[in-house]
Amino acid sequence: MSEYVAPLADMRFTLNHVADLERISKLNGYQHADPATVSTVLDEAGRFFTEVISPLNRVGDLEGSVLGPDGQVRTPTGFKEAYELYVEAGWAAAHMPADWGGGGLPYVVGVVIEEMFKSANLAFSLCALLTHGAVEAVRTHGSDELKSRYLEKLVTGEWSGTMNLTEPEAGSDLGAVRTKAVPQPDGSYRLFGTKIFITWGDQDLTDNVIHLVLARTPDSPRGTKGISMFLVPKYLPDEQGNPGPRNDYKIVSIEHKLGIHASPTCVISFGDSGEGAVGYLVGDEMEGMRNMFTMMNPARIGVGMEGLALSERAYQRALAYARQRVQGRPPGGHQPVPIVEHPDVRRMLLTMRANTEAMRCLLYYTAQQGDLMLHGGTAAERESAADHIALLTPIVKAWSTDLGVEMTSLGIQVHGGMGYVEETGAAQHFRDIRIAPIYEGTNGIQAMDLVLRKLPLADGAVVARLLTTMSSVLDELADYDDLEATRDSLADAIDGLAGTSAWLGARLAEGDLDPVLAAATPYLRQFGIVVGGWLMAVSAVAAKKGPADFDADFLSEKVNTARFYNEHLLPQSLGLIPTIEGGADLLNAARF
Amino acid sequence: MSEYVAPLADMRFTLNHVADLERISKLNGYQHADPATVSTVLDEAGRFFTEVISPLNRVGDLEGSVLGPDGQVRTPTGFKEAYELYVEAGWAAAHMPADWGGGGLPYVVGVVIEEMFKSANLAFSLCALLTHGAVEAVRTHGSDELKSRYLEKLVTGEWSGTMNLTEPEAGSDLGAVRTKAVPQPDGSYRLFGTKIFITWGDQDLTDNVIHLVLARTPDSPRGTKGISMFLVPKYLPDEQGNPGPRNDYKIVSIEHKLGIHASPTCVISFGDSGEGAVGYLVGDEMEGMRNMFTMMNPARIGVGMEGLALSERAYQRALAYARQRVQGRPPGGHQPVPIVEHPDVRRMLLTMRANTEAMRCLLYYTAQQGDLMLHGGTAAERESAADHIALLTPIVKAWSTDLGVEMTSLGIQVHGGMGYVEETGAAQHFRDIRIAPIYEGTNGIQAMDLVLRKLPLADGAVVARLLTTMSSVLDELADYDDLEATRDSLADAIDGLAGTSAWLGARLAEGDLDPVLAAATPYLRQFGIVVGGWLMAVSAVAAKKGPADFDADFLSEKVNTARFYNEHLLPQSLGLIPTIEGGADLLNAARF
Repeated sequence: MSEYVAPLADMRFTLNHVADLERISKLNGYQHADPATVSTVLDEAGRFFTEVISPLNRVGDLEGSVLGPDGQVRTPTGFKEAYELYVEAGWAAAHMPADWGGGGLPYVVGVVIEEMFKSANLAFSLCALLTHGAVEAVRTHGSDELKSRYLEKLVTGEWSGTMNLTEPEAGSDLGAVRTKAVPQPDGSYRLFGTKIFITWGDQDLTDNVIHLVLARTPDSPRGTKGISMFLVPKYLPDEQGNPGPRNDYKIVSIEHKLGIHASPTCVISFGDSGEGAVGYLVGDEMEGMRNMFTMMNPARIGVGMEGLALSERAYQRALAYARQRVQGRPPGGHQPVPIVEHPDVRRMLLTMRANTEAMRCLLYYTAQQGDLMLHGGTAAERESAADHIALLTPIVKAWSTDLGVEMTSLGIQVHGGMGYVEETGAAQHFRDIRIAPIYEGTNGIQAMDLVLRKLPLADGAVVARLLTTMSSVLDELADYDDLEATRDSLADAIDGLAGTSAWLGARLAEGDLDPVLAAATPYLRQFGIVVGGWLMAVSAVAAKKGPADFDADFLSEKVNTARFYNEHLLPQSLGLIPTIEGGADLLNAARF
Repeated sequence: MSEYVAPLADMRFTLNHVADLERISKLNGYQHADPATVSTVLDEAGRFFTEVISPLNRVGDLEGSVLGPDGQVRTPTGFKEAYELYVEAGWAAAHMPADWGGGGLPYVVGVVIEEMFKSANLAFSLCALLTHGAVEAVRTHGSDELKSRYLEKLVTGEWSGTMNLTEPEAGSDLGAVRTKAVPQPDGSYRLFGTKIFITWGDQDLTDNVIHLVLARTPDSPRGTKGISMFLVPKYLPDEQGNPGPRNDYKIVSIEHKLGIHASPTCVISFGDSGEGAVGYLVGDEMEGMRNMFTMMNPARIGVGMEGLALSERAYQRALAYARQRVQGRPPGGHQPVPIVEHPDVRRMLLTMRANTEAMRCLLYYTAQQGDLMLHGGTAAERESAADHIALLTPIVKAWSTDLGVEMTSLGIQVHGGMGYVEETGAAQHFRDIRIAPIYEGTNGIQAMDLVLRKLPLADGAVVARLLTTMSSVLDELADYDDLEATRDSLADAIDGLAGTSAWLGARLAEGDLDPVLAAATPYLRQFGIVVGGWLMAVSAVAAKKGPADFDADFLSEKVNTARFYNEHLLPQSLGLIPTIEGGADLLNAARF
């Protein structure tokens, strides 16, 4: 039994009928990405990640990446060979810019491939996630010199990239960064300081590792305003661009973590020998935070994807187990049956399926907005998409990763006692995903971003527009009798979200931040659940229209799952309203 | 920093003012257990578990129990010495029957000590949990011969006990048990078969291990009706009662699990040499299932306790971290502050505290009912308590253990990136507790027990009586202005539960089981949340009355926490109603 097979049918359906690939493929520069071509690409990608990357998931967990006595990180058995195939086949570059050696596919297609990589092997996929972030930063902010020296090798995956942000005293608060960057006569800098939690901070997969490091130049202002970004290669390239002398930093240790064991989480000491690590400024001095968000925003969507990806893998595993495990009789039955026939097991499986499909809708829809933001035909289209993606990013990140923890936990539960035994593999997903609500900005930080930055966008008009967009599906639902309950439930849920949004908006307008901050996390949760309901309704309507490229069974399942989401799960969003509007008084009164 | 300190103040408050220890101490046989004496006992217990048992929590996780080449399980460093102290001090026997060497304390006091053990070291505590189960089975169903030979040694903890139920094809469905028991001329039996998932199936702490094994005698009827229970000692006692010849079974392997590494989960092969393991019938033939529930019901409450115990430990750890970790500025502030001052962190901590205190209320209340069931002054009192405990047992088990997973996850989240690093210790709680929703009957089984067995008790009158009891606190809340919102919220929540109970009752009356089974898990969740709200309201009213043995700060915190539970968390129970009443059609229609 294969542990993971890319769910190509649902991916194609969501891509074509929720994220409207047809529309994206008509944008300037994406004309080659028509749905038929993309479908072929995805078939191939599915084979690659299923056959080459997924089988390394368990060995990665068991062996982990380790720091050798030579100060060099060694990846688990098979990773190096698989990474070479990944680069050779061009998967690393599929949606990277064509002018730097990439495949030039739309972001929304890249995201589907990213889902496969993450489902197949979350720990491994993080190397690519960070490299993609580095590409964005260098492409957007780097000098021509930096681009010509580094960009193509990062795009193709020949070299990898990392983000060096966190320090022992600077986690969620990057303003506290202390790493120093001392300017040199030749225009370069020398870096000194310690960074922690550096994902894939070193490895033996590529000939070079390119770190993007936040640091402070002399006399820079305090806080985030004084931070700059530097590119620090492991090996300084020679004239031909080949790796030359080793830069002055040391991998001090790697963390022993709950999960993602194959992903080396490094402590790095820059300037360890006293000379200082050679670094090159990316963009201008003091603009490090802005540049960092260029990497961070797509990375946040990528982390949201992890919630989807492991829910999918956990679902597949739980379903396979539930089909083959025979135990217990149904009421009135005499023969034991596969547990998939028991209502409570069906409830768990359908909950996993519904949430997974809802997350897939949200991820692909958000990525579509990313393509429209860059390639939309009009300024209004691009701006609207930019607003949408800004609003949805914290929701994608936090809602999906919280759900990822919950769905992988359900995956264990379906297995009963076997789920608690590591050999089964279900427990690994639960361990692996638990980092996702934490890194790239904790989910609490996401929630603050939502209420303090995104909700006030255009005086609340961005949220209002999304609510209007969501409501527009209600009319379409009205055409189908069996979607009436879905329509009612969704209408109530959208009303509920409009209500809490207005309540929070009023507090913000009064400058009364405490109740807003107290409400942030449950409000984000409510928002995610409702957006999921809307997009599942969109997919139900699309399925009702009976697109020719999907068979009737598939389409009726889509409708049934969307109904389950909207009728059974969505109403839980209403239960959060009193929590959201409960104010901060009791929180403030508590003595800790 | 100590990782766990028994929360003696809250324990005493809950014991005295929610579980009404005063009343219990007036029952026949418990007169020595007055609140003052019990308080002294708990102080001592707190010291013991904090100082002796808790420090072994991490070494237990790291080393685990291992199976030696001699077929003997070895426990982690320090466990043997600590276990000896535990037995010597009499903690093993504190609430065990006095006529067999126990301390004779009420069950409700035993449960407090059990909470300490589980918080201090969950994996270690399981050895005691299983031994207590064995005591119940032998005391209630064993012959005088068995009692005189085994009971005192089990009560004092000199020997340990186990439950051998599960087989590879018989998990949730024990009717599928195949282990054979062949009668011998001397009245004993010889057992042959393989048992799996045997918690503390072997160890090096005690001189003997006493297994209670479900097996089938020849020509017994199929299913659960044909199952008998046998006592199978590791070493057959000689005439003096000392361990003699080794019985014929083998520890085949121990599982590599997600957590509770110090607790050896064994595969045991009985009759491995061909002779058969010598076993003695407990009770009558074919009554194994009934006897098993004698062990299982208290064990289910004990497992529910695990959700409380690890939530408490996770809360203490998260709080300590949040107090000392300085990061980020409050809105408008200029200096970084301890993260405990950030509203979202306070929300997490208060959510953990509120749920933990609610679970403690439920656990102690349920245990109080256990004492009343056995020692109540009138038959009516005993019966009412028996009904209550029957109804509450599945809720205690499933609601508390699901919350345990959620609260330990929040505990990780409070730590940010440090929470994902194993050295911090927060991750261990999350791994350890994940078994609790599975063993001693999965939470799905508990939910079925609630809707199919407990809800119909006395034609629904048992649930109706509990709803009436719960409503009685509403009048008391009305005496306090600041509890008005709590009162409103609780009244709505109780109405909501009455509504779903009636809806399910109507389906049951029609024999329409599918929607009842589909609703079982969310209904149990709703029930747990509402019971928690009721008991937190009880504790708020008790605190308002200002009992002299607690200071004003403590009491005002109790009120604040109860308000947070009722005003912020309890309304989420209403969001479950559409899920509960959503029916089974969509579940049945789904194709898996």
